[in-house]
Amino acid sequence: MQTKKPDRMPDALVRRLPAYYRQLTELEQEGVTEISSFKLAEHMGLTDSQIRHDLNSFGGFGRRGLGYQVATLKKSIGDIMDINREHPMIIIGAGRIGSAVAMYPGFKEAGFNVTALFDVSPELIGTQVGGAPVLDAQQLTEYLAQNDIEIAIIATPATQAQQTLDTVAQAGVRGVWNFVPTTLIAPEGMVVINVHLTDSLMALSFRMHEVDVINQGLSWTE
Amino acid sequence: MQTKKPDRMPDALVRRLPAYYRQLTELEQEGVTEISSFKLAEHMGLTDSQIRHDLNSFGGFGRRGLGYQVATLKKSIGDIMDINREHPMIIIGAGRIGSAVAMYPGFKEAGFNVTALFDVSPELIGTQVGGAPVLDAQQLTEYLAQNDIEIAIIATPATQAQQTLDTVAQAGVRGVWNFVPTTLIAPEGMVVINVHLTDSLMALSFRMHEVDVINQGLSWTE
Repeated sequence: MQTKKPDRMPDALVRRLPAYYRQLTELEQEGVTEISSFKLAEHMGLTDSQIRHDLNSFGGFGRRGLGYQVATLKKSIGDIMDINREHPMIIIGAGRIGSAVAMYPGFKEAGFNVTALFDVSPELIGTQVGGAPVLDAQQLTEYLAQNDIEIAIIATPATQAQQTLDTVAQAGVRGVWNFVPTTLIAPEGMVVINVHLTDSLMALSFRMHEVDVINQGLSWTE
Repeated sequence: MQTKKPDRMPDALVRRLPAYYRQLTELEQEGVTEISSFKLAEHMGLTDSQIRHDLNSFGGFGRRGLGYQVATLKKSIGDIMDINREHPMIIIGAGRIGSAVAMYPGFKEAGFNVTALFDVSPELIGTQVGGAPVLDAQQLTEYLAQNDIEIAIIATPATQAQQTLDTVAQAGVRGVWNFVPTTLIAPEGMVVINVHLTDSLMALSFRMHEVDVINQGLSWTE
């Protein structure tokens, strides 16, 4: 009898799940129906024991020696990420970031469907972005009461971000995708993923520096 | 005598470097001048042995029992990421994504300075985005010959992305920040960081599902 709650999955594993899904989608498009963990590992730059270990975290899907059915494994990983259904989302803040997200290719195909944007600017309210209407931010609470929205994308000015999170949390939104470079406090049970674009640029800068350190035999700190 | 080239640093470590930098910047702003690895670990949700291990990868900065000087450590991590100087960048593709990136707050302060955008659209050429001019994509090679650009941000249609990478690589650009959801092939020595925004949404969806699995004692695969 198991009474202990399972732990959260490690970030590194969660980061690999979309990569598996992408790889399996590509294989499916190429007409590949079965693949060994060894071949899949080769495609993904991982070891086959890493892949078996990752999949075993969720119960395992392998048939030792037989490899994986591409379509079945893709479906299972989609179920694990819970992306085999629609996720209605709203965007709060219809400025450059908010509207870029609304227009971003690939979200809708993955079932992430923006139903509305919200803004305070009279010039934006009433327009359409990426097929979704921009509504008055004052209607936010009412809209959330009438529509079953799972995910709120926060793209407001930094000063409004926490208050926006509090509003959507109170209305029952369970997930926040935060584009504002500020730390937000969320209630228990709500999930917040912060998109730190500057971190990604810093990683790029680091990797460029690393090429020089390795190739020229430099020291990291001078 | 060491002849073996050092390995690339692990992705997980590289991902923590900007988080250290952000935390140290916040501490500095709060007037904290010294911090123990234990306290720093607490702030960051890591263990102190993890932090010492991370920093030792670059030669180590600790004075056992004395903790870290906030300003000195911040400077060192900035040097390691090579962000204590300007990085001139260009953006290829001045559509929603490209212009959102050009306007994104925080890049310029971190020294990532967009000097120009490039596009093929006559309506965009000649305009300004985030203080930088939108130039004709036909001028790209000429511009790169005349300006010392380190990083190219690719925000073109998917069909143009590889060709754009080839062009900037040939002109000596060493880093690519790719917003196009397609796999690009880069020459040796060039660094490419792909921004997979859909992956981040999938991670959000996974974490929301995980809350249910843990709290309701569900199984991952049905």
